[in-house]
Amino acid sequence: MEIGGLVINRKEVAKLAGVSEATVSRVLNNVGPIADRTRQRVLEAARQLNYHPSAIAQSFVKRKSGNIGVILPYVPKVHIFSTYYFSEILSGIGEQVKRNGYDLLLLFLTPEEELNYAQYFQKQKIDACIILGARDVPQERKALLELERGGYPFCLVNQRFEGCRYYGVDADHVTGSYEAVRHLAEQGAKDIAFVNGPMMYSNSADRLEGYRRALEEAGLPYRPERVFEGNYSRKSGYSLSASLTLQGSRPDAVFAANDRMAIGLLQGWKEKGLEAGRDIALAGYDDSDAAKLTGPPLTSVDVPFFEMGGRAVEHLIRQMQAHSESIAGEPFYEILPTRLMVRPSSKFNPRK
Amino acid sequence: MEIGGLVINRKEVAKLAGVSEATVSRVLNNVGPIADRTRQRVLEAARQLNYHPSAIAQSFVKRKSGNIGVILPYVPKVHIFSTYYFSEILSGIGEQVKRNGYDLLLLFLTPEEELNYAQYFQKQKIDACIILGARDVPQERKALLELERGGYPFCLVNQRFEGCRYYGVDADHVTGSYEAVRHLAEQGAKDIAFVNGPMMYSNSADRLEGYRRALEEAGLPYRPERVFEGNYSRKSGYSLSASLTLQGSRPDAVFAANDRMAIGLLQGWKEKGLEAGRDIALAGYDDSDAAKLTGPPLTSVDVPFFEMGGRAVEHLIRQMQAHSESIAGEPFYEILPTRLMVRPSSKFNPRK
Repeated sequence: MEIGGLVINRKEVAKLAGVSEATVSRVLNNVGPIADRTRQRVLEAARQLNYHPSAIAQSFVKRKSGNIGVILPYVPKVHIFSTYYFSEILSGIGEQVKRNGYDLLLLFLTPEEELNYAQYFQKQKIDACIILGARDVPQERKALLELERGGYPFCLVNQRFEGCRYYGVDADHVTGSYEAVRHLAEQGAKDIAFVNGPMMYSNSADRLEGYRRALEEAGLPYRPERVFEGNYSRKSGYSLSASLTLQGSRPDAVFAANDRMAIGLLQGWKEKGLEAGRDIALAGYDDSDAAKLTGPPLTSVDVPFFEMGGRAVEHLIRQMQAHSESIAGEPFYEILPTRLMVRPSSKFNPRK
Repeated sequence: MEIGGLVINRKEVAKLAGVSEATVSRVLNNVGPIADRTRQRVLEAARQLNYHPSAIAQSFVKRKSGNIGVILPYVPKVHIFSTYYFSEILSGIGEQVKRNGYDLLLLFLTPEEELNYAQYFQKQKIDACIILGARDVPQERKALLELERGGYPFCLVNQRFEGCRYYGVDADHVTGSYEAVRHLAEQGAKDIAFVNGPMMYSNSADRLEGYRRALEEAGLPYRPERVFEGNYSRKSGYSLSASLTLQGSRPDAVFAANDRMAIGLLQGWKEKGLEAGRDIALAGYDDSDAAKLTGPPLTSVDVPFFEMGGRAVEHLIRQMQAHSESIAGEPFYEILPTRLMVRPSSKFNPRK
């Protein structure tokens, strides 16, 4: 077999040059830092042995597509690049991908197909990948396990899996949510409702933890019936606006797990003549561009999505270097800080 | 040569099956619609001749990466996916790419490199591509000419090149701009300034034409000193806000070539205590999400960017089918309609 023949040749080059086979590969594939003297020795040995791996054989050896993949979740009816969350993360990814000389392959999941991330590596479409919008469900865990077993470099963004040690970049959503709810309590709000996202996202669970922690610290009771679940869409916030302001049960304040849902609440309330910052205090999350433009401007929690995307690429590059140098990479989960941005929507006026 | 041998084999299969070589390719590569009877005949002939093209040889024959490329312009300091313009076009492209079973490869241009779009086809990274943010400059024309000469399927979005017959999807920016300026004139504005983008974009030139046409129809003089050039960024609008409202020279109304620049104007004016819709009438362009959220809400021109992205992919798919069926594709330029959206910012109050 040709490929087998190639391996033997590489062995001979390594022997003559007095270096490891891995070093021969790195020199010939131009991967990673190599001392000039070592490089010279390998190239000289290759010339003596008349060793010229063909372009096709090389592509088998290198398995390099030059692409970094981003797996995008299926989100029906949403212009995915037009959401602040995805657009900022993708911008951060794009900038680092470009800086590292890669191209960016976007892989769109469809609702019918089984999750199979390893196939993109097996077909050599990508060298590494970032998974956005991962959910803690069995088929997602299975797909990630396949990646881990295959030794394929990948990185999660904004999602953790209990019991797994995967590379990932997250934001400190516990503290972010804690600070938003503490701020509402400090305004004097006693009854603070929470519109969260689905719990299959670890970042929703983190927000719930921050909400509970702030309530506890403020000496306010945690009441499960004051926690509502939307799906992070504006529409879900709008739909919940009615149940949140039923006659006689209107809370003092609402903490929404993202700005899109908060804006949906604003719109629904406006139709009923209710205004945030006057009739009810409201805080959103993400500090999207829209938060600064709403009437009234929205108190929110800044999340460094752009930086998170960039850091995820850096983790991939490090993993790939570790691979090519046969250094075992330690799984690494990084958590970036969030920041509360106070604006008029969270003003609380006690009802007379 | 192996590849040569393959071609001869395919010829033999074609002869035995009584079909063209192209038909044999289409059946074996599973491309395009083929009558069941023809398919059977080709597969039977291939079996009789013991013809099994290897996977590697096949990839040479098919040259299929399964990727559609999008070439993105270099835009310094901008989170490119966070701009309404790019995010909507990319969402439209993404949806159609997914629907057609392709993946989407984003190719980021860097400021130092020479434009060379053909390389992505030569390296077999993509099967077809869409070029966003193309400018009418010599090096761009050269790169497109190389694509045309190589027979590589490509499609432009929102850009025309005089004298060239390339596939493209555009919006009717002449009419869009004409309607915005006519609306300002109908409000009673006599002195209407125009903040345009750079003229190397055909869509800027289109807007200027619409502006001039509306002035002429309203019997207002066209004055070149009332046309300002920004670069479609919010910052450039903000910078121009001062020169536009110099003591004694404030226009009745301003038409801005996109919402980002209009929002920059709004911000600059606000700092001077001026308000759009009260002190000066303002119309933007794009009808971005932000247009509905500004204070006051912004009159703007809706452009179907999402649809434009989707149509561009459809044109690529058609071109690829034409290729594989050896049908000469006719260059096709499609222009979608725009729509004026009137909101409070364009209200005109004659000064006493």
